[in-house]
Amino acid sequence: MAEVAPEPSLLIIGGGGETVRRPLPDSLHVNGGDGTYSYTRNSYFQRLAANVVKGRIKGAITMKLDVEKLSSTSNTIYIADLGCAVGPNTFDAMQDVIHFIQQKYTLQCPQSNTTLQFLVLFNDQPSNDFNTLFTSLPRERPYYAAGVPGSFHRRLFPESSIHFVHCSYALHWLSKVPEELLDKNCGAWNKGRIHYTNAPNEVVQAYASQFAKDMEEFLCARAMEIVTGGMMTIIMPGLPNEMPYSQLAASLMYDFMASTFMDMVNEGLISEDEVDSFNLPIYTPSPAEMASVVEKNGHFSIEMLELTNPASLVDGQVDIKAWVIHVRAAMERMFIKHFSPDIIDEMFDRLTKKLFMFTEQVESGYKDRTQLLVVLIRK
Amino acid sequence: MAEVAPEPSLLIIGGGGETVRRPLPDSLHVNGGDGTYSYTRNSYFQRLAANVVKGRIKGAITMKLDVEKLSSTSNTIYIADLGCAVGPNTFDAMQDVIHFIQQKYTLQCPQSNTTLQFLVLFNDQPSNDFNTLFTSLPRERPYYAAGVPGSFHRRLFPESSIHFVHCSYALHWLSKVPEELLDKNCGAWNKGRIHYTNAPNEVVQAYASQFAKDMEEFLCARAMEIVTGGMMTIIMPGLPNEMPYSQLAASLMYDFMASTFMDMVNEGLISEDEVDSFNLPIYTPSPAEMASVVEKNGHFSIEMLELTNPASLVDGQVDIKAWVIHVRAAMERMFIKHFSPDIIDEMFDRLTKKLFMFTEQVESGYKDRTQLLVVLIRK
Repeated sequence: MAEVAPEPSLLIIGGGGETVRRPLPDSLHVNGGDGTYSYTRNSYFQRLAANVVKGRIKGAITMKLDVEKLSSTSNTIYIADLGCAVGPNTFDAMQDVIHFIQQKYTLQCPQSNTTLQFLVLFNDQPSNDFNTLFTSLPRERPYYAAGVPGSFHRRLFPESSIHFVHCSYALHWLSKVPEELLDKNCGAWNKGRIHYTNAPNEVVQAYASQFAKDMEEFLCARAMEIVTGGMMTIIMPGLPNEMPYSQLAASLMYDFMASTFMDMVNEGLISEDEVDSFNLPIYTPSPAEMASVVEKNGHFSIEMLELTNPASLVDGQVDIKAWVIHVRAAMERMFIKHFSPDIIDEMFDRLTKKLFMFTEQVESGYKDRTQLLVVLIRK
Repeated sequence: MAEVAPEPSLLIIGGGGETVRRPLPDSLHVNGGDGTYSYTRNSYFQRLAANVVKGRIKGAITMKLDVEKLSSTSNTIYIADLGCAVGPNTFDAMQDVIHFIQQKYTLQCPQSNTTLQFLVLFNDQPSNDFNTLFTSLPRERPYYAAGVPGSFHRRLFPESSIHFVHCSYALHWLSKVPEELLDKNCGAWNKGRIHYTNAPNEVVQAYASQFAKDMEEFLCARAMEIVTGGMMTIIMPGLPNEMPYSQLAASLMYDFMASTFMDMVNEGLISEDEVDSFNLPIYTPSPAEMASVVEKNGHFSIEMLELTNPASLVDGQVDIKAWVIHVRAAMERMFIKHFSPDIIDEMFDRLTKKLFMFTEQVESGYKDRTQLLVVLIRK
């Protein structure tokens, strides 16, 4: 096994202790509370999409997770959900994972009198609405619950303390906008766009490098935290190996967001500089790219890495209005931080109208196999 | 060792799993945020009081906590602060405890190359302002941090998963108002009062019974969670064995609160029934009483149980205005839940004026040895 690189968030100090240095809270969190645009009320698309791979996760746990071994020193299984947001999706996902682990344990140890216990560690940015998360926890639940504030690009838990990590629709968020994009004199200055769709190669490269760097930090931190034989399941947007990025439904939306903003620039509602200096810190890797970062890291074996169709459980046409509200619930904070809050309503209204005019294109992009499932085992 | 009684919050279900049944969130939490009446800005009295016993806690850890043994299976020490509220007191307390444990470890294992790691589990009611707690966590800290929502009268953590429990100015809160007090036809109907100061014996008895019951539940839950040899430190208001309860500064305040409310009844601002049906779920035990509940429970040995003067670090006269604001920061939610919010300002204003007229009495009550320190070791 290769050596784990020194964890950048840890600063060793004297006196036998270590000090954990954390980044300041940022705006990469979903809408809290339970209002019209809250994530709590607008995240069922993510749940439907994640449900597509529920059977596969059950299969991975049944085939690959040695629950008997993991529970040999203590009967408590420690599970983390990274980027959990505010529910209810995280509660459903944790319930499922626990159920599958219990089933596997019964399969492995049919004679055992031991009852497994579970502690679920709900993680998200410190600015996440943990108050809503905690007050909406299911009243009857088969686990003890804790919230862990912090960026999952850094260490969150003690060494070898976690048996199972789940991470659903969170790892496509980069830790920050690539710095090159903020330099007007650099080829990666992203004029008139807010993302890398249809952007010059320098912009795409800056995003790809940031993703690779973030993933390496993420995997190093998890390698320290997850016990040998522990499992990590990742669900996130994925780009089919040969598909141009611009074909994704999400890309279409980001392009339309940019053109909506540019319309507003032309009408004098916002300045061009505001648009040029705004970029979404979101990246969609291909399976090949994901395999490459995991292999380069070296601490995990890839047990499953495949694309699925996130919309295969959705009947009929895409509900564009609901789709925009979902995106708003997940991303609005970032816009509010950069633009004046009073133009946000206007932008999302115009965006919805624009997308309605391209329903067919949205439908086509939406129906592809654009959801990546990765199952890793800590070597 | 006696058997641990079945934990009432756990409901065993089929399929090898256990479901943890939680009480609904209640109003027993301090003021969140960082406004004028926030606990964050108005809790330094509690810190000064707790500081009085800092040296004793250091002594207890040095003399009684076998850190070498606790860290023999893993180099991570799990610490819980029960009823942590929103800082900054909890951060200071945890920093101290970790420092003392590290010092003890160096003393026990001077040659060790192991660096102890710490996970601090910050616990309070689900309705506590965890958002403020998390965003105000010290940026550089020698521990990993998690928040655990739930009543400490129930199970919070997996079996044998905690090495050190701290509980400062929280255990005097009862889990609820004793039910007898709400029955008009019962001798414990607490007419014209909001507490057991100067109340009939039935009222005092109802409070004492509730405290004993709560403590038994608290100790049973902790007995399940704390490893053998683990330590629990409790700091809370205490009543000298022979002192009448009415002599305590806090009692004086509760009496004046009641008389202020009764003045407002006489002026038609609130109804008499509102006052009669309101009671503070707060209890101050004597050392003898505390010793008795711990011994009856049987799972912990008493290493220290003593009264200290909480004000011994405070110079000069009691600052009555600041004292009332502190009490308000800690207790306002309970009043707001029962009374109309717009009379709360009025009540606290009148209370402050009333207390100023009895400065001498307050001073005298405030200078007594009325802070209880209990140090227990899990047998």
